[in-house]
Amino acid sequence: MSDAKFELYYWPGIPGRGEFVRLVLEEAGADWVDVGLQPEGTKAVMAMLGKGPVPAYAPPVLKVGDLVISQAPNICAYLGERFGLVPSDEASRLHARQFQLTVADGVSEAHDSHHPIAAMKYYDEQKDAAKHRAEDFRTQRIPKFLGYFERVLKANPQGGGKYLLGRDFTYPELGLFQLVDGLLYAFPNAMRRIAPEVPAVMALHQRIRERPRIAAYKQSPRAQPFNQKGIFRHYPELDDPNATK
Amino acid sequence: MSDAKFELYYWPGIPGRGEFVRLVLEEAGADWVDVGLQPEGTKAVMAMLGKGPVPAYAPPVLKVGDLVISQAPNICAYLGERFGLVPSDEASRLHARQFQLTVADGVSEAHDSHHPIAAMKYYDEQKDAAKHRAEDFRTQRIPKFLGYFERVLKANPQGGGKYLLGRDFTYPELGLFQLVDGLLYAFPNAMRRIAPEVPAVMALHQRIRERPRIAAYKQSPRAQPFNQKGIFRHYPELDDPNATK
Repeated sequence: MSDAKFELYYWPGIPGRGEFVRLVLEEAGADWVDVGLQPEGTKAVMAMLGKGPVPAYAPPVLKVGDLVISQAPNICAYLGERFGLVPSDEASRLHARQFQLTVADGVSEAHDSHHPIAAMKYYDEQKDAAKHRAEDFRTQRIPKFLGYFERVLKANPQGGGKYLLGRDFTYPELGLFQLVDGLLYAFPNAMRRIAPEVPAVMALHQRIRERPRIAAYKQSPRAQPFNQKGIFRHYPELDDPNATK
Repeated sequence: MSDAKFELYYWPGIPGRGEFVRLVLEEAGADWVDVGLQPEGTKAVMAMLGKGPVPAYAPPVLKVGDLVISQAPNICAYLGERFGLVPSDEASRLHARQFQLTVADGVSEAHDSHHPIAAMKYYDEQKDAAKHRAEDFRTQRIPKFLGYFERVLKANPQGGGKYLLGRDFTYPELGLFQLVDGLLYAFPNAMRRIAPEVPAVMALHQRIRERPRIAAYKQSPRAQPFNQKGIFRHYPELDDPNATK
């Protein structure tokens, strides 16, 4: 399919769960290709799903030589460890994976806020249930997830409130950045309310956004914007009502 | 809290996500204690959540000496690798984690089948939405998850249709066992319909159930039965209707 060392297979047209992998590849400066964005990309992604001795349940799938792996948090951990985006001691690796998995749980709940009944049915078919689930997500779950990471940032004895792990940037910060970025897109009103409660998380989001490779990537044609087909969708009726003056 | 080498912190009273960890500890023959089942267990679990330099978002939490980690699939991978319940080559480890994560996705969806709107509200408050979500879960999602593992079992060139990975038992088979076990409890009618489509998965479930250490554990007072408070709940109105003759 290409000469790149790392091939990402993910649906074109949305950031989706593939974006968590893309951010690690970009931050690592890896030699990679987004197969879904190539000609016949969707076909290639579909073909990859059924193939090989270890099938994938769903994209993203990463192919590196003969190795084919799936599950976004698994791929992110593999790349983060391989590229030295986390210290190599066992505890750091396990804690980084723990954070990445907690980000992934938040991502799944963000998806279900607009699709609480059936992933394969249209939003319009589950609008009423979505209103209830989104209210719970905005008022209970977003504060709980982001509040957790706020506590992590403050509990890290070496991080000065800035780092999830140890005394420097690690790859799960890319995941937390993307989760916050998606929430800002989908729930701008709710996030205006919640952000002051989680200042360290919001500062981390800003720092990651300004990392040179992440900033360059997000402005490149390789980055796909949020839209109404992805995990993070902006339906005004699912957000907090507009603040009245 | 105890002299055991491995301390599991999980809510007492339900198998829950803790059960995925318990099964690996039992199969490994580890020296472990279920802190939640000790006197004042719930208090100890709650205290563990806020504590330490790397807080946990939720139980299960595993404490091994100074190491404290959370997220069930992360703990299972740590234990499975440490106890040699997966080959030590990189590909096997990554694929085992991929399977464990896919099991965890199925577990989350099983939970949401009775709680599609709000995790902290009662089932009775979301019964109507649950009916719709459970129907989708039974007709679309269970067949998709179990069908995936059926394909994995058949695609493994060394496994003779019996093993997820390589030529022998590996720890994610414990997770798949528990997922199937929970589905059989929660959705007996639906599983009667689905089981014939996934014979290799059902045979794996039976083999794991008969493994000496798993069988002994499940009959011991350490094992807590499924009930109406856990992830897998049997509400007849959420299952397939009873077959008519």
